[in-house]
Amino acid sequence: MVHPGGVPVTGRSVAQNAELALLLEVTGTPKPGNVDRERDYDDLRFEHFMAGAVGARPGLELAADGERVGHAFERAVAGMADQSAGNTQFGALLLLAPLVAASNEDALSPDGVDAVARATTVADAADFYRAFEHVSVAVEDPPEGLEPLDVRRGSDAIPALEARDLTLFDVMERSAPVDGVAAEWVGQFERVFDAAESILADTGPVPDRAARAFLELLAAEPDTFVVKRQDNATAEEVQRRAQAVLDGEEDATELAAEFVERDINPGTTADLVAGALFVALDRGLVV
Amino acid sequence: MVHPGGVPVTGRSVAQNAELALLLEVTGTPKPGNVDRERDYDDLRFEHFMAGAVGARPGLELAADGERVGHAFERAVAGMADQSAGNTQFGALLLLAPLVAASNEDALSPDGVDAVARATTVADAADFYRAFEHVSVAVEDPPEGLEPLDVRRGSDAIPALEARDLTLFDVMERSAPVDGVAAEWVGQFERVFDAAESILADTGPVPDRAARAFLELLAAEPDTFVVKRQDNATAEEVQRRAQAVLDGEEDATELAAEFVERDINPGTTADLVAGALFVALDRGLVV
Repeated sequence: MVHPGGVPVTGRSVAQNAELALLLEVTGTPKPGNVDRERDYDDLRFEHFMAGAVGARPGLELAADGERVGHAFERAVAGMADQSAGNTQFGALLLLAPLVAASNEDALSPDGVDAVARATTVADAADFYRAFEHVSVAVEDPPEGLEPLDVRRGSDAIPALEARDLTLFDVMERSAPVDGVAAEWVGQFERVFDAAESILADTGPVPDRAARAFLELLAAEPDTFVVKRQDNATAEEVQRRAQAVLDGEEDATELAAEFVERDINPGTTADLVAGALFVALDRGLVV
Repeated sequence: MVHPGGVPVTGRSVAQNAELALLLEVTGTPKPGNVDRERDYDDLRFEHFMAGAVGARPGLELAADGERVGHAFERAVAGMADQSAGNTQFGALLLLAPLVAASNEDALSPDGVDAVARATTVADAADFYRAFEHVSVAVEDPPEGLEPLDVRRGSDAIPALEARDLTLFDVMERSAPVDGVAAEWVGQFERVFDAAESILADTGPVPDRAARAFLELLAAEPDTFVVKRQDNATAEEVQRRAQAVLDGEEDATELAAEFVERDINPGTTADLVAGALFVALDRGLVV
């Protein structure tokens, strides 16, 4: 479709844009350490992300239809997990569910998605815990005394959630210091919206823009998925070397090969890019 | 999900499998002459196929819901065209629409899809013509005397269709000698089903299986899209050189680079692979 003023207008639905964001995210290359159009891990390959994106769509449609964010997320994760490689886009879906819900309310702005996040309930938190039953997700041990709330307990933790009256926003607030996706939930999705504006202001093929946004995000803050799977020192090295690529001091393709070799997978930063691509598509990014 | 017998059972819907087939098709590499995970044309890139697949989904859902095949196809093409590169998967959707419809009737077999094809009406033919208004598709000039039925006339040709009482099957029958997709419509989708069995019997990552199936199909018959855009001699050369790759006498990656350079794009063969991947997914192919 072309708008009378000459501006292309997409006919894609909100859920279609969310699914396409997942597909464009994994296509962008080079994204050092992540599966992308040119790189696979042996047991986590490009096609698993495609099946994950296609599978997540019914859950994303629930979010677009005004269903509770937690339930939509849990359904999206269940569909995503319907491929042989396990977790592909758990964090990305945790960002997309409230973003899609906000778009459905014509409120896809920092304030709008913040309102969606703060309106979540204990039932949404319970759904979030249920989602961990569909896939194995890398997480840190809970702080002392909070073992009853360990997400790895899945739905067994729901009574503890209910006893403490914790909403999904509350759960995110507790994780925000150690989890970059949770930090977005409690920080008005600031990095997602900023990256969306970078992608919109950039030029060239969309996957190339996504790869540049990835490097900028990676250089700006340590990736919390790397912290969880390796350690702080590795996450800081990743951050420093992403900056070196931006400064023209390191080659992105070589760095990508090295990170894959060392199994350094900055997955949280990839999740942020997926969220940013969705916002950019919602705002008219043309593919 | 895992079936009690240990066989994985997918939770994907028929339309999800059709969309995933489109995504897996473009991922398989090397597919000499086509856009794939490693190759783009300047103005026809990987991400356009992703947006095309996502956009086609609502039309594929109509086919899965028992809507008329022609209407479902026209809607799928309209959604596919919602990206900036024009035609990406017109032929693949023309194969998928009846295959999806047959699966919806639990009749995804040569006989079952043949029955779907033969049950199409003049209204389906009219929808097929309307689909040409969404994108520019390479076609040959019609035979003398058949100018009123030139597909490039779009819906202007509908009165001529109605006057001659031509169903979509009739239209395919007329095109079958010069169009590999139409030939499937009138030939019980034989090459699609055979390629699906090859993919299922093969081992390794699904995109690699798709690339092998592509080469086998390409070596077996001239690609009619190459005939239309270049000529018979080029299509025969393509066929011969695909066989040389299978025989280990040519390198697939070098051939792919040469075909992209010469703008030789065996798109009909890619369409057959998309259809075959759908049938394979429907029959339990695990991604």
